[in-house]
Amino acid sequence: MTALENLIQTLSRLPGIGPKSASRLAYHLIKTDKLYNSTLADAIATIQDKIFPCSICGSFTEYDPCPMCGDTSRDRTQLCVVEQPQDVLTLQSSGAYNGLYHVLGGAISPLDGIGPEHLSFSKLVKRIDEGGFTELIIATNPTEEGDTTALYLRHILKNHEELSITRLASGLPIGGDLEYADRITLARSLRGRVRF
Amino acid sequence: MTALENLIQTLSRLPGIGPKSASRLAYHLIKTDKLYNSTLADAIATIQDKIFPCSICGSFTEYDPCPMCGDTSRDRTQLCVVEQPQDVLTLQSSGAYNGLYHVLGGAISPLDGIGPEHLSFSKLVKRIDEGGFTELIIATNPTEEGDTTALYLRHILKNHEELSITRLASGLPIGGDLEYADRITLARSLRGRVRF
Repeated sequence: MTALENLIQTLSRLPGIGPKSASRLAYHLIKTDKLYNSTLADAIATIQDKIFPCSICGSFTEYDPCPMCGDTSRDRTQLCVVEQPQDVLTLQSSGAYNGLYHVLGGAISPLDGIGPEHLSFSKLVKRIDEGGFTELIIATNPTEEGDTTALYLRHILKNHEELSITRLASGLPIGGDLEYADRITLARSLRGRVRF
Repeated sequence: MTALENLIQTLSRLPGIGPKSASRLAYHLIKTDKLYNSTLADAIATIQDKIFPCSICGSFTEYDPCPMCGDTSRDRTQLCVVEQPQDVLTLQSSGAYNGLYHVLGGAISPLDGIGPEHLSFSKLVKRIDEGGFTELIIATNPTEEGDTTALYLRHILKNHEELSITRLASGLPIGGDLEYADRITLARSLRGRVRF
């Protein structure tokens, strides 16, 4: 295998990169500024040494605790529960939340053999028991697994009466068109209709 | 900037990789097998040292002359002229061509300041003058620049009467639908209709 074939094949193992994209990327990497290649190669080679899960919330960080958990200007009465570390970034980019996070590490999915014991529920309950939170926002995905996880969460926290448990609203995407909404989303947005 | 932000930003400078894809790739690279990351990093870091243009045809190679130019089983009477090195790979993947190649390094584009002097026409003419070729297949892109380049090529080779000059057929893509063809492609496929 030539160096070029090797690069194309290695690139095409990345998620969402098919053989055509891999080939286009490889030819780009041959012609681009060489400094860029060494920067990218170094970033890829070292990322796993630099990044690890925060010991408190479980999101990826370079320092422990992570900047989010250590930031005293954030609202420490709100806790947002997400499935994956990248969900923290996504929610942060909305600019609409200023509380703390908890990363479960996935969602309950019996078909994939993922039960509650594989996710960081006990750590979450311990954090809540230590007190201070008044609202728990469940931000699991609007999927069957995310729904199951949300129900399980509500179940194990049912004795925490100090805690207001909420979940992200489901409905029509902003800028979307009724005509193109799938019927499940449409049904949810009808059931969850709000006074206007 | 954190290591993660750096990786996402570096990845998003690749062609066709937006911020969302870059972020997805970065999170994948955090969680994937570490050996994969070092393989990919090494392939990216070393590609420019290993790959260079073939001194005969101009396509990318690890050895000079390239495997294509050195392969005595290929038809040495046919020469296919392409714009970019990656076009060689694309044509090879069709399995329909077994002759030699010549890479121009681009197409004539006055608006981008690319004139014939920036492309390897003189090298091409020298190869043809050395003799042996009976057919020249112009495989420049079916774009304005590709068309201009093809016309220029026909012009500078008009005294080579031994050479049959052809160009890749334009028309409807196989598996395509008349309804979805753009009108320029449709017009070309009408003008270029063949006896059935």
